[in-house]
Amino acid sequence: MSIRIGILGYGNLGRGVECAVRQNDDMELAAVFTRRDPGSVKILTEDVPVCRIEDVQEWKDRIDVMILCGGSATDLPEQTPAFAKLFHVVDSFDTHAKIPEHYAKVDAAAKEGRKVGIISVGWDPGMFSLNRLYANAILPEGRDYTFWGKGVSQGHSDAIRRVEGVKDAKQYTIPVDAALEAVRNGENPELTTRQKHTRECFVVLEEGADAAKVEEEIKTMPNYFSDYDTTVHFISEEELKEKHSGIPHGGFVLRSGKTGWDKENSHLIEYSLKLDSNPEFTASVLAAYARAAYRLAEEGVSGCRTVFDIAPAYLSAKSGEELRKTML
Amino acid sequence: MSIRIGILGYGNLGRGVECAVRQNDDMELAAVFTRRDPGSVKILTEDVPVCRIEDVQEWKDRIDVMILCGGSATDLPEQTPAFAKLFHVVDSFDTHAKIPEHYAKVDAAAKEGRKVGIISVGWDPGMFSLNRLYANAILPEGRDYTFWGKGVSQGHSDAIRRVEGVKDAKQYTIPVDAALEAVRNGENPELTTRQKHTRECFVVLEEGADAAKVEEEIKTMPNYFSDYDTTVHFISEEELKEKHSGIPHGGFVLRSGKTGWDKENSHLIEYSLKLDSNPEFTASVLAAYARAAYRLAEEGVSGCRTVFDIAPAYLSAKSGEELRKTML
Repeated sequence: MSIRIGILGYGNLGRGVECAVRQNDDMELAAVFTRRDPGSVKILTEDVPVCRIEDVQEWKDRIDVMILCGGSATDLPEQTPAFAKLFHVVDSFDTHAKIPEHYAKVDAAAKEGRKVGIISVGWDPGMFSLNRLYANAILPEGRDYTFWGKGVSQGHSDAIRRVEGVKDAKQYTIPVDAALEAVRNGENPELTTRQKHTRECFVVLEEGADAAKVEEEIKTMPNYFSDYDTTVHFISEEELKEKHSGIPHGGFVLRSGKTGWDKENSHLIEYSLKLDSNPEFTASVLAAYARAAYRLAEEGVSGCRTVFDIAPAYLSAKSGEELRKTML
Repeated sequence: MSIRIGILGYGNLGRGVECAVRQNDDMELAAVFTRRDPGSVKILTEDVPVCRIEDVQEWKDRIDVMILCGGSATDLPEQTPAFAKLFHVVDSFDTHAKIPEHYAKVDAAAKEGRKVGIISVGWDPGMFSLNRLYANAILPEGRDYTFWGKGVSQGHSDAIRRVEGVKDAKQYTIPVDAALEAVRNGENPELTTRQKHTRECFVVLEEGADAAKVEEEIKTMPNYFSDYDTTVHFISEEELKEKHSGIPHGGFVLRSGKTGWDKENSHLIEYSLKLDSNPEFTASVLAAYARAAYRLAEEGVSGCRTVFDIAPAYLSAKSGEELRKTML
């Protein structure tokens, strides 16, 4: 029997989950829920209903796992605890500082509803977190490094769009090769913000806007750009659409550490992602953890979990026996 | 209270575990067991006894987890099932094809003794296996690649030493950069054995030996070298000792896969290790899984487990709360 998946929120991430479900033979899409008028939302899968979020209660027995595809700023802090009372849920809550608080709320709600809630699933938090944990457990004496990119930062792109005279913009976060190489060489460098990443901006100006003024305003913007070496390119609207409409991302998690009686041996553990589509990759991780939620629930588990709490085998459609035979 | 660790077998791996235990504050070394005369075995830790393997039964209540540091060819197939009746055990059994059989034996023994047995812990099998599983679960449509090296292959070094006229030798397995790059570029190449790795040999000749003949014999050796591009360097005994006495290793696990409704987006997941000391890194992984064995046992678990079956949080000395706060 297939795992019946519900999608709540149909933006880039929701559409990514829809695609991921199609790639997993043991899953099927049951319904998509939206705050918009369902009639206005066209999904890719045939014969699957788009429903009003208010009607979700009616689906209580027809959905095994609800994948929450809202944003971390305002949607998920409300939605995940609310829906964890009704469904097994998986979310990609990514406000690192607020994870403990979110965990506590989801845990209480999921226990009340006797459901499983898996939070902060994706790649950071998510796969990057897992790699930090494994590497720290293996090499207790060492240093961690995380680099992001090359990839599009939505937040930084939005910040540029708010500058007067800017019509549209896209910002790429780029790891500095020299810093990455220093880490790989075991130099254990102390790296400032500026030394780790650069920021590259592609900006479409409003007609008659002052390019020099816009560039200055971007480069000196506190928090977003002032601590970085920032490059600004002015391009046409057509070029932005043609060359910069993708949502690529990725990054690197490294840990360098020492072993030996006199700490005479160095080791480097490196994990990296190069993603054409940030939301589709995140969605693919969500789908794998939806499978885990379903299986944990079958074992009678309830409450909140993170990627740290879930044995890897739960993510795979293969049996333990097959995994040991083919992948160990 | 510390986790009391026993080491069975005191070669490179056993010594590595001794060093790893010292780096983990929640562990202490209780005793080392050897088949040799204990009086002839000098360990690094002060005030820890070296005991005869025959006396292991006396330690039943004084050791929490026994880490088995024997070889996969003849030691572990016997030892792990035997000792899993008496202790929680962790081994690094690495004969991939025989893992299912080993698992079954250890599972039966551990259940009989109500112990936890974790097998095939290290980096391949081990961390590489984990990365294969995670990457396959996330990207169901894609291809896997594993490259080993640059590193010393003990088996290949031994094979060279058996050639007539060879006094000593060291063999390095080296991944082919062009192949790695093709995978990273998403070309999904079909790679032959020869295209994936080269083999580099450093050989000390016996006096009067025929270098050309030795080189020919190495390069044409079936299974070991005939399918590879092999380079042979003849060097002095001093140079071999000076430049080639380390046991470095490492490698790469990659999965490239597609997502999207029309599979229009490509993704690359890459995990790599660069290790100064193969046995010390393996030992460090064993120590982390010894912690997991101890904790699983505290929860009443018994039977055989692999890295696939163990939630990552069990490997860390930190609490779930602390992990969520600092690493997620």
